[in-house]
Amino acid sequence: MRLRIDLAYDGTGFRGWATQPGLRTVQEELEGALATALRVPRVILVCAGRTDAGVHARGQVVHTDLADDVAPDELRRLPRRLNGILDGDVRVRRCEVAPEGFDARFSALWRRYTYRIADRPELVDPLARASVLTWPRALDLDAMNQASQVLLGRHDFASFCKQRPGATTIRTLLDLGWSRDEWGYASASVVADAFCHSMVRSLVGCLISIGEGRRPVSWSEKILLAERRDPGVTVAHAHGLTLEEVAYPADDELVTRAQQTRARRTSLD
Amino acid sequence: MRLRIDLAYDGTGFRGWATQPGLRTVQEELEGALATALRVPRVILVCAGRTDAGVHARGQVVHTDLADDVAPDELRRLPRRLNGILDGDVRVRRCEVAPEGFDARFSALWRRYTYRIADRPELVDPLARASVLTWPRALDLDAMNQASQVLLGRHDFASFCKQRPGATTIRTLLDLGWSRDEWGYASASVVADAFCHSMVRSLVGCLISIGEGRRPVSWSEKILLAERRDPGVTVAHAHGLTLEEVAYPADDELVTRAQQTRARRTSLD
Repeated sequence: MRLRIDLAYDGTGFRGWATQPGLRTVQEELEGALATALRVPRVILVCAGRTDAGVHARGQVVHTDLADDVAPDELRRLPRRLNGILDGDVRVRRCEVAPEGFDARFSALWRRYTYRIADRPELVDPLARASVLTWPRALDLDAMNQASQVLLGRHDFASFCKQRPGATTIRTLLDLGWSRDEWGYASASVVADAFCHSMVRSLVGCLISIGEGRRPVSWSEKILLAERRDPGVTVAHAHGLTLEEVAYPADDELVTRAQQTRARRTSLD
Repeated sequence: MRLRIDLAYDGTGFRGWATQPGLRTVQEELEGALATALRVPRVILVCAGRTDAGVHARGQVVHTDLADDVAPDELRRLPRRLNGILDGDVRVRRCEVAPEGFDARFSALWRRYTYRIADRPELVDPLARASVLTWPRALDLDAMNQASQVLLGRHDFASFCKQRPGATTIRTLLDLGWSRDEWGYASASVVADAFCHSMVRSLVGCLISIGEGRRPVSWSEKILLAERRDPGVTVAHAHGLTLEEVAYPADDELVTRAQQTRARRTSLD
């Protein structure tokens, strides 16, 4: 039986999603809570977006395979039971039996992240300080949107990725747009089929330099076309970044989608 | 020279606004930071809304009188200087010379608070856990809005206030409305000329009982008319409450407004 779990976390106190010996990670905490709740020796989770240390999630999706079925009643009570075990910085929002062919990682159509920046002193909100970057200079969102346009589409994003041996850095950037949200923050919505390591934060770091006027609008295209990392591109701080949503196709397309994804890429975030 | 300061704080780590010996309060921290920044022995602040322990503010307004004028250049740098001294859970957003007759407390026309509740497991967001109440049962906002209607206007809110000797509990409730905000939270906007002690949280506690169906819609009117505290009314948790905004009249009406307020009330929150 494959279980789908939707969860949210404040990444501040975690060394990211993926288990690392001796460090507090979301994967390890949730796997431990599931093993306790389901009274099994071990649970292994596969997630849609392997967030880095300090990155948050509101729409993280994971799956796990269980040897024994969970009774419907127990499944209904599982979110509350898990939240009773877990610390308050990670919350399980939903647990359900995954449809046939569902794979949290390989069936996903796209991931959507937001990056939020308070670029004026009047915007700084202590209640949001864990998830909004404070920036000392005002950002020109028009310039940042112009510079974002050329990045859209299917490209080799090697310039914006920490390379992993044998992994492709070709991705399809479906959306990258800046706007003022209801709090006045400069907020980016970033959507791609998948992201390679540190990609969103490198894109944001590049665009911040353009937004504050240190670099021209044309700089983003120059960086992209170079297809190698440029020391001038800063990787923006982790805490401004939140994984908001992971989208999946209709149930009858899950298997096909997973097969396509596996064929195209050897490593996904 | 009277200084107006606008500030925001995460109330989690504070025992409220007002100084209490041996406890960490916003007033004491800000007074200390101002004394350091302005190199004066002591600063005394007057605030618009004396928030209780655990209550947050995005739009708190305070004033202080200084013996010596602050140079324009120094005033411009003051917010950044104060924020360098203060911990990250309180941020100064603006410092300016107050207009003639301005009094943060007595010139205010009204205060606006919000109270936010995540009443479904899918809404719970660890990033907002410091400022959103988690409630285990779904709330009926239509019922809560109906029950709120009868509370609007000028009344003796003794049923919803912790009495202070010699202080009136007559207030004018200008708005009390519930809606789903952009995150899906049940969110109340509560506006009054002023609030007596624990008034917003008692109103919210009463309305939650109606929203979850434990009490009829007519209950709020019954409580109001009794004009004394009812043990059935729970004071809702502090952490769901945020002071969002304080409104002042045009500069030429500041003196008159302060005189009116002082004449009408002996104690204000």
